[in-house]
Amino acid sequence: MLRINGGRLIADLRTLSAFGKFQTGVDRVALSIEDIEARRWLCGKLREIALDATMDRYGNVFGRDPKVDKAILIGSHTDTVPRGGWLDGALGVIYGLEIARAWRESGRTAPVGIDVVSFSDEEGTYLPCLGSRSFCGVLDERDTTTAKSKTGAALAESLSALANEAPLIRLDRERQVAFLEAHIEQGPRLEASGTKVGVVTGIVGIRRFRVTARGQADHAGTTPMGMRKDAAATLFNLAVRTEREFPKIGGPDTVWNVGTFALHPGAANVVPSQAEMTLEFRDTASETLDALERSFIGWVDEASRGQVKVEAVPTARIAPAAMSSTLGAALTEAAIANGDKPLSMPSGAGHDAMFLTAQIPSAMMFIPSIGGRSHDITENTADADIVLGCQVLADATEKLIARFA
Amino acid sequence: MLRINGGRLIADLRTLSAFGKFQTGVDRVALSIEDIEARRWLCGKLREIALDATMDRYGNVFGRDPKVDKAILIGSHTDTVPRGGWLDGALGVIYGLEIARAWRESGRTAPVGIDVVSFSDEEGTYLPCLGSRSFCGVLDERDTTTAKSKTGAALAESLSALANEAPLIRLDRERQVAFLEAHIEQGPRLEASGTKVGVVTGIVGIRRFRVTARGQADHAGTTPMGMRKDAAATLFNLAVRTEREFPKIGGPDTVWNVGTFALHPGAANVVPSQAEMTLEFRDTASETLDALERSFIGWVDEASRGQVKVEAVPTARIAPAAMSSTLGAALTEAAIANGDKPLSMPSGAGHDAMFLTAQIPSAMMFIPSIGGRSHDITENTADADIVLGCQVLADATEKLIARFA
Repeated sequence: MLRINGGRLIADLRTLSAFGKFQTGVDRVALSIEDIEARRWLCGKLREIALDATMDRYGNVFGRDPKVDKAILIGSHTDTVPRGGWLDGALGVIYGLEIARAWRESGRTAPVGIDVVSFSDEEGTYLPCLGSRSFCGVLDERDTTTAKSKTGAALAESLSALANEAPLIRLDRERQVAFLEAHIEQGPRLEASGTKVGVVTGIVGIRRFRVTARGQADHAGTTPMGMRKDAAATLFNLAVRTEREFPKIGGPDTVWNVGTFALHPGAANVVPSQAEMTLEFRDTASETLDALERSFIGWVDEASRGQVKVEAVPTARIAPAAMSSTLGAALTEAAIANGDKPLSMPSGAGHDAMFLTAQIPSAMMFIPSIGGRSHDITENTADADIVLGCQVLADATEKLIARFA
Repeated sequence: MLRINGGRLIADLRTLSAFGKFQTGVDRVALSIEDIEARRWLCGKLREIALDATMDRYGNVFGRDPKVDKAILIGSHTDTVPRGGWLDGALGVIYGLEIARAWRESGRTAPVGIDVVSFSDEEGTYLPCLGSRSFCGVLDERDTTTAKSKTGAALAESLSALANEAPLIRLDRERQVAFLEAHIEQGPRLEASGTKVGVVTGIVGIRRFRVTARGQADHAGTTPMGMRKDAAATLFNLAVRTEREFPKIGGPDTVWNVGTFALHPGAANVVPSQAEMTLEFRDTASETLDALERSFIGWVDEASRGQVKVEAVPTARIAPAAMSSTLGAALTEAAIANGDKPLSMPSGAGHDAMFLTAQIPSAMMFIPSIGGRSHDITENTADADIVLGCQVLADATEKLIARFA
């Protein structure tokens, strides 16, 4: 048994949260002074347990076990959204640190060791998953010269502070035999079901459309109902039809959202000439996404046969990323051995594991988010749940070390 | 037969449209230099036909037939919305001028004459129907000290330019036995039915509500559909239910509109915590408005029984104003005598006649709007339709003079 030290784990998470502390949360956006300081602190902690730790020119921190040729890679990211929470990706990184430390303390040796990683800018302050995409060799380097933050800061300028760091660290498929990423759920399901561990089946794909209806502005008092070309009414019907029909087409975990809606000209007494909304839907199965898209486009075409013309323009398209079921089974077994009945669930949000899973067997594990909250200073998880999650991941790692040896 | 002069009528309308001409339309908002100049020009035209013409301190222009103790009052307003059309209320005023002129030219005398009026600020640059409300004695004078235009100009300051004009002109119920207001339809019905005259049964009442749904913002990827409190979905359903049920509750002329709709926080990947829309509905029958309101409030209450709370706050409530059926019959007869099959219809927009009808028998007559356009520089009516409309109103006036004598 690989026993992790819960008190030390929580203490390290607390120490890390002091970098960029903001009220009860953390403001540690990628490549900020606080982010870089936190990464240097992490390098120090990794060196304490005799890992070769480096930070590369994009801010990726990598702790390499020098005694082995093969390793389980454990980690996530330590950058946050503005005014974010203290756990998020930091949890998965400190789990990696604690499990590597526990492994070293156990005094055991094996041909397979543990590498630890904290990827840069997962949150996309400049470029979403900058670090993991670079690590996996799928980043278009030209994007780094043009990327800017929402406030207009250039990525290239922020990176110049790291010009003297290590060359870019790349995934070594011969060495890293598996990737394990733990993360808070960022949703309400584990808490609602009283479960402590979620084993992620896959990261959902996302399809997003900007839907525009074009009719005609008319006086809302003098134009009889039958003579209107009401863009709003057309989109209201489309939204309600989506709400009614998607459950019949999608799977049990399919989700969708109309998050923006605007009318023009936007006056109480003018029939709207134009209505615009965004619809996005997510699922782990491409076939499900295809079926939803086909249906929706069909409804758009039908709606367009009337006086109002409707158009749906795709604005985002992210493919689903399946997780390794073998690694998932190891997590499930470990959770059961620790007394939990783990929940098999999709990840509705994106993570670094999206890119890793295309390269090497990868798995993700969730622990509960209190109230489902995340990306906010109220984000939290009970200490006991944090500790249990780490023990589960440690147990799974131990088994995988034996299996890959 | 009282014969109007069509060429002269069109020429006067064209001359009037030169005051504040803007491209193919007119920009002559109330109390602007152009509006006052146009009103002084109108006073001159009224004096040419020996009417006692004055402009009062609110800008109302009144032409009094000095030879009689009783009169049919004919008119409307000569102010426009910004970048409006050349007809709108100007039409009804110049109809009054032309009919009074034709009456004088006919050399006939009767105990009942014709007074002509152009009310001030019908369009509400400062205060909607300022002139007709003052004329009818139902204006709260305190409002004139606080009213401001959308651009922040104070009504009191604009009125100071008229400080030396005549004292406020009031309706004299003993004298003005009826009010006739002609106006462009501002809608598509006459054109669509090939009709040249619309006889207004009443001016619709308006009820307007701000409807707010309050749910909870959640991550649109990680929150299962069943655990959401989606404010947008709730209002979409309410809007569609309104669209489906109102036709069953309202009358054939009932109209309604959802003209504004907003979501918060308004991001594609966030379940909306709040949704807000305005619903207004119009009808000439108070009982119909009551029935629509009862049903809608019932649906709001039903919707509120779920996780999302919905509230409907009334923001406008204007009572319907019935027109005199006796005067309407005179218009109908005159239209038929001129070869038209007039359409009996409500006015979906407000007019000065709303206030007059509460004091003396009043009627409104519409002529077609090309493409239903109004309050825009594209507003227009065929010259022949303008002339025909004036002849119809003249014939009706002639009959009413005989009847009230």
